[in-house]
Amino acid sequence: MKRVFNFSAGPAVLPVAVLERARDEMLDYKGSGMSVMEMSHRSKDYMAIIANAEALLRELMGIPEDYAVLFLQGGASLQFSMLPMNLITDPASQSVDYVLTGSWAEKACSEARKLCADVRVAATTKSVNYTRIPTQAELTLNPNAVYAHITSNNTIFGTEYPYLPDTGDVPLIADASSNILSRPVEVSKYGMIYAGAQKNLGPSGVTVVIIRKDLMGRKANLPTMLDYQALAKEGSMLNTPPTYAIYILGLVLEWVKEQGGVNEMERRNIHKAGKLYAAIDGSAFYLCPTEVASRSRMNVPFTLANPDLTDAFLAGAKAAGLVTLKGHRSVGGMRASIYNAMPEEGIDALIAFMKEFERVNG
Amino acid sequence: MKRVFNFSAGPAVLPVAVLERARDEMLDYKGSGMSVMEMSHRSKDYMAIIANAEALLRELMGIPEDYAVLFLQGGASLQFSMLPMNLITDPASQSVDYVLTGSWAEKACSEARKLCADVRVAATTKSVNYTRIPTQAELTLNPNAVYAHITSNNTIFGTEYPYLPDTGDVPLIADASSNILSRPVEVSKYGMIYAGAQKNLGPSGVTVVIIRKDLMGRKANLPTMLDYQALAKEGSMLNTPPTYAIYILGLVLEWVKEQGGVNEMERRNIHKAGKLYAAIDGSAFYLCPTEVASRSRMNVPFTLANPDLTDAFLAGAKAAGLVTLKGHRSVGGMRASIYNAMPEEGIDALIAFMKEFERVNG
Repeated sequence: MKRVFNFSAGPAVLPVAVLERARDEMLDYKGSGMSVMEMSHRSKDYMAIIANAEALLRELMGIPEDYAVLFLQGGASLQFSMLPMNLITDPASQSVDYVLTGSWAEKACSEARKLCADVRVAATTKSVNYTRIPTQAELTLNPNAVYAHITSNNTIFGTEYPYLPDTGDVPLIADASSNILSRPVEVSKYGMIYAGAQKNLGPSGVTVVIIRKDLMGRKANLPTMLDYQALAKEGSMLNTPPTYAIYILGLVLEWVKEQGGVNEMERRNIHKAGKLYAAIDGSAFYLCPTEVASRSRMNVPFTLANPDLTDAFLAGAKAAGLVTLKGHRSVGGMRASIYNAMPEEGIDALIAFMKEFERVNG
Repeated sequence: MKRVFNFSAGPAVLPVAVLERARDEMLDYKGSGMSVMEMSHRSKDYMAIIANAEALLRELMGIPEDYAVLFLQGGASLQFSMLPMNLITDPASQSVDYVLTGSWAEKACSEARKLCADVRVAATTKSVNYTRIPTQAELTLNPNAVYAHITSNNTIFGTEYPYLPDTGDVPLIADASSNILSRPVEVSKYGMIYAGAQKNLGPSGVTVVIIRKDLMGRKANLPTMLDYQALAKEGSMLNTPPTYAIYILGLVLEWVKEQGGVNEMERRNIHKAGKLYAAIDGSAFYLCPTEVASRSRMNVPFTLANPDLTDAFLAGAKAAGLVTLKGHRSVGGMRASIYNAMPEEGIDALIAFMKEFERVNG
C-alpha cells in the first residue's frame, strides 16, 4: 500500500486512523453482520451512529442547546439558496448583507439575489483579487438586514477572517466549509454556521448546518426537503440521510477528540501554517499573494518568482509524493491545503522539497 | 467476520464483492496513494470514476443520447420538489397528474401541491390500503397535463406496476427508487426516471435522475443547485458531488454487468420473488396482503394468520441471521426486501426458517 501527502482543497486528506477503521468495519460493523452502508437508517445501530456524531460535534464546538445541528445534502452550495429561502419572509422589502471575500462568497450572494430584491454588498476586496479580508471598519452593515453573510475561510484565495465580525443584532451567518473545527468558534455569536464536510469534517455528500432555533420555521409551505424546521423536527431523518458519509464524519470527530479537541487542532494548525508561510517568506524564490494579517491556516497559495518553473515544480513534487498542489486558476501557481488531517510530516516534506527545488533551480 | 442476510428496505444489502473491493481500496485506490474519499472531484482519477459510472448506467439501462444522467443529492424526496420546480412554468394555470399507489406517491403529490395550483389525482388505490396498482383503464389522465407521475414500485406496500402506463404525449415521470435496475425498462417511454440509490444502486446519499433533455431549461432564475439544466451542463459537478457514494454506485453497476446485466437481474428477481411468494401462498399460516397481479419483486410483505406470533417470528429470524424483517407500521407483520444484491441463499434461508417456525408454532 502506498500513501502520498495529498494537499487537495477538498475532498481532502482524512486521518489514516479513520480510513483504517472504515476499512476494518466495511463488511461487518461491530458484529452486526453488515456494512454501515447497508444499514437501515432507522436501525438501532445506525441511530446510535448519527446521535453520536451530533453529540461529538456539539461537544467539540460547544454548541448551545438553542442551536439545531442538521446533517444535510447538497453541499454548501445548496445552503446558498436554502438560507434566503428560509430566512427571508418578504423578498420585496427585506434586505440582506453579504461580505465578498472570494468566489464562494460571490456565488452565495448571486443565489441570494434570486430570492431577495435587496441584497447589499457590505464590503468586497475583489479589487485586490481577494488577497485580504476587509476590516471591521470597512464593513458597511445594514442594521435592518435579515442577516449578514460571511465566508470564514476562502479556499481559493487563501484568506481567513482574523477577527469575528460584529454585526450587532443582525444574525451573522458563516460559510465555514473550509475552516470549521480548525479553531475554536463562539457559536452563540452566530445565527448559523454551515459547512460542506469534505475539507475538515469528512467525505463529500454531507453538509453540516448549525442554526439558532429561532431562525427556523419563519416561512410556511416551503418544499419540505428545503425547510430547516421540517428537517430539524425529524433529526435530519426526514428521508434517508447520507448514512455512510455521516458515519465517516463521526469517525473524524472521534479522531479530533482523541487528538485533544479543537484547541489542539488550532495549536497544530498555527504551527503547521506558520512553518509553511515562514518557508515561503524566507526565500525570494517563492511568493505568497495574500496579506499577512488575512492569511488562512488552511489553504496556502504560493507562486514562483519565475512562473515558468511552475510545471516543473508540480511534476517534481508529484514524483516526491506531494500531490494536488496545483493552484486554482484564479490565483495560479501552487496551493497547499493543510487541513486538520494533514500531518506535520506532510508540511515538512513539502518544505524540504521546496528547499531542494530552489537549490537546483534557484 | 460475521455476515447476516439483511432484508432492509433501504439502505439495503450490497454485493459482498463490492464491499470487499471498497475495503481493499480504502487507503490506496489503484496506486494513487489515497482513498477515493480523499480525491479532488476534479482529479483525473475521480473524473474517470464518475464517467465510468455514467457510461455503465447508460449501457445497462440503454439510456438514449437525448437523455441526461445526473448524480444528485437529497434523495428521491428532493426530486418531489425539483420536478415541479423545473417543469412547471406557470403554476397558476398548468396541471399535473399523480397516480397514488402508496405513501411515497402521496408525498410526491403533496410537494407538487406547494408548487402548482392544479394537481390532479389520476387514480388512487388508497381505499384498499394500496394493496394493488390501478389498471390502465382506471387512470383518468389529463391530456393537457405537464407530466404524469407514478411510483414504479412501492417499498412499503409491496406493489409494483405490472404494465407500463400509457400517458400519450404527456411525459411519464417515474420514481423508480425501489426497482430501478431490477428489470429492463424502455427509457424512451419516460420523460424522467429518478431513484435514490440506497436500494438497488448503492449507498444512500446519491440520487440518479435520467431526464429527457428537452424537459430541462424551461425555467429561468431557479436556485442553481435545483436547476436540472445547470446541473447537467456541469456533468453533475456544479459543486462537489457525493464522490464516495458515486464510486460505490459504479462498483455496483460493474457487478450488475458482470452478473449478466439487467436481463439476468430480472431473471433472478422473478425466480427469487416467485419462490418466496409460493412459500407464503402455500401455507395458511402466512398471508400476503397484496393482489397477485400487482406484487412487487423487490418488497414482499407478509403477515401471520395469528398476529400474536409476529414478535416471536422476528426474534427467531434474527437469531437465525435473518434481519430487518419487521414490516412497516402501515402494513404490519413482516417485509422481506429482496433487491438485486440479495442472494438466492438468503431467500432459501428465509423460507427454511418460515417452514420451521410454522412446524413449531403451527
